[in-house]
Amino acid sequence: MTTLKNDLLLRALKGEKVQRPPVWMMRQAGRYLPDYIKLRKKYDFFTRVQTPELACEITLQPIDQVGVDAAIIFSDILVIPQAMGMEVLMEEGRGPLLPKTISTQQDIDALHIDDIEDRLSYVTKALSLTKQELNGRVPLIGFAGAPWTLLCYMVEGKGSKSFDKAKQFCFTTPAFAHSLLQKITDATIHYLIAQVKAGADVIQVFDSWSGMLSPADFKIFALPYLTQIADAVSPHAPVILFPKGSWYALPDLCNTSASGLGIDWSITPQMAREFTNNSITLQGNFDPSRLLAPISEIKKSVREMIDAFGVDRYIANLGHGILPNVPVDHARAFVDAVKEYEPAPNYTTV
Amino acid sequence: MTTLKNDLLLRALKGEKVQRPPVWMMRQAGRYLPDYIKLRKKYDFFTRVQTPELACEITLQPIDQVGVDAAIIFSDILVIPQAMGMEVLMEEGRGPLLPKTISTQQDIDALHIDDIEDRLSYVTKALSLTKQELNGRVPLIGFAGAPWTLLCYMVEGKGSKSFDKAKQFCFTTPAFAHSLLQKITDATIHYLIAQVKAGADVIQVFDSWSGMLSPADFKIFALPYLTQIADAVSPHAPVILFPKGSWYALPDLCNTSASGLGIDWSITPQMAREFTNNSITLQGNFDPSRLLAPISEIKKSVREMIDAFGVDRYIANLGHGILPNVPVDHARAFVDAVKEYEPAPNYTTV
Repeated sequence: MTTLKNDLLLRALKGEKVQRPPVWMMRQAGRYLPDYIKLRKKYDFFTRVQTPELACEITLQPIDQVGVDAAIIFSDILVIPQAMGMEVLMEEGRGPLLPKTISTQQDIDALHIDDIEDRLSYVTKALSLTKQELNGRVPLIGFAGAPWTLLCYMVEGKGSKSFDKAKQFCFTTPAFAHSLLQKITDATIHYLIAQVKAGADVIQVFDSWSGMLSPADFKIFALPYLTQIADAVSPHAPVILFPKGSWYALPDLCNTSASGLGIDWSITPQMAREFTNNSITLQGNFDPSRLLAPISEIKKSVREMIDAFGVDRYIANLGHGILPNVPVDHARAFVDAVKEYEPAPNYTTV
Repeated sequence: MTTLKNDLLLRALKGEKVQRPPVWMMRQAGRYLPDYIKLRKKYDFFTRVQTPELACEITLQPIDQVGVDAAIIFSDILVIPQAMGMEVLMEEGRGPLLPKTISTQQDIDALHIDDIEDRLSYVTKALSLTKQELNGRVPLIGFAGAPWTLLCYMVEGKGSKSFDKAKQFCFTTPAFAHSLLQKITDATIHYLIAQVKAGADVIQVFDSWSGMLSPADFKIFALPYLTQIADAVSPHAPVILFPKGSWYALPDLCNTSASGLGIDWSITPQMAREFTNNSITLQGNFDPSRLLAPISEIKKSVREMIDAFGVDRYIANLGHGILPNVPVDHARAFVDAVKEYEPAPNYTTV
């Protein structure tokens, strides 16, 4: 095994003292990068995802071009429903579409989970190749969608402002919902452990739609499955849970086996530290739209953000994925501001 | 002036003791009601909004058919940008579209505000007519969009997942943003006071997109303008502020002149009471998707919600607008459950 030359991310997740926080950006591979846009013109979405050489190339672009402290494998959360047997259509500029949605126990029973690692071997191959190409420069992050978020797409069939079809399914047939959530959880655990074996140093679980749930419903439909995944995967690699919009869940989530929690920009660093009792590494939470501000403003806001979170137990990141219209030099300014960070003279660890 | 036969809403906003909380539903006039859908087939959106007889008829439908404790005038938050001189297109089933957006100080200077009450006289006429037709059965609620939310549409031109164009405008040209926000605020204050003079007993201000702002940005781009509106309108009628998604703003907002704060379902009643130091009437916060659950479940959840908020200083409502696909008898079950509410034997006021 190659020793990591830059292990800031791993040290932050362990809670070790660091000179400065590590920095990466959600969706850093893709969208706003001109070299990615060139590849997008040549290969369709699933070709890019399913060809290990292409996924590797895209994963490496921001390491070389923006200078982040971690790589995250280029892939998609919907590869799991697809590997379970559902058709997933992905048109450029539109959201995903799953033409045949789940509504009955029979639909759930028809989903495959036994051979999930084989069906997703293109991801593990991409990870191995990327790990080799990185040659220890920075850690490699693997990921999956959280069971609740995948249920949203599998039942609703597409993005939605309210996901009311998915919620109606949960509220009217909770036994089916739990059967589906458990099946997704089992598949996800196998998939994530396979990712670690293939070279992922850290795992992030994206619960992109958890914020649609009330605190009471989060405890029923999201928390138990996130907990199972963190418990099963954390013996293999540190796990970061990112429950977008679910600030209310931080007290519960900091008691799981996760090493880090991602947060969006709707909470102050101070409140996030308070809700997690200062006991876990936090990741976030720069408003992605703020990368459209002038560079001097970006750098100032980044410094204020680190001042507020503190240097230790902290991973600088956005509060959600980078927007497609962010200029590359603004993304670089975000990363540079973290790298240039010097604690204020009156700085004390939170 | 007619005395109100049902003044539960006003008493709840004053913090007076009540036998049970008042109940109404955001977007109760429209969408899910078959009689509304019939009118929608005959008249386009702005004909419905701008014809006082139609707006009145639509406003009264849920009073007779669902039994809510308040009427809210049928209108739209975008009537203000429209009255200020912007073109607003509203196609059924799609969101609003404002073809010419605001981007310069010149665009802002071109907006009219002097004769706003005249330009919106169709709303005040609809309120007078509805007030007369209600004949004191229940209070009448007038409303407007909050300045930040209106800026979002005026700058972005349409709905958006991130409103990054609106945010970029604020982050790169804050002086223009404040100039626009102040102009909207001035227009809104005139408009809302005119609504009260025409018969509105209560005013609600919808900040539908405030949750897109970080707590720090909320203090800059939303709070000062909400505060101005609450200060100016509250001498005329009680004001309810509804900053959707901005749970973090509750401590600041409970120190404004508002009589009530609307909350969505992403916060527990207990936390909302804690954040507002038990000092203000709260309104909400049933997940609108829960109205798709079986009726017995709806009734049970409503009882639990009232148990958690307490009977006093509370207005039962949804946490956002009712969904178009909610069966009328489910909406009625929500209202009935509040009306049938009996405190648990061990009930104590929070």
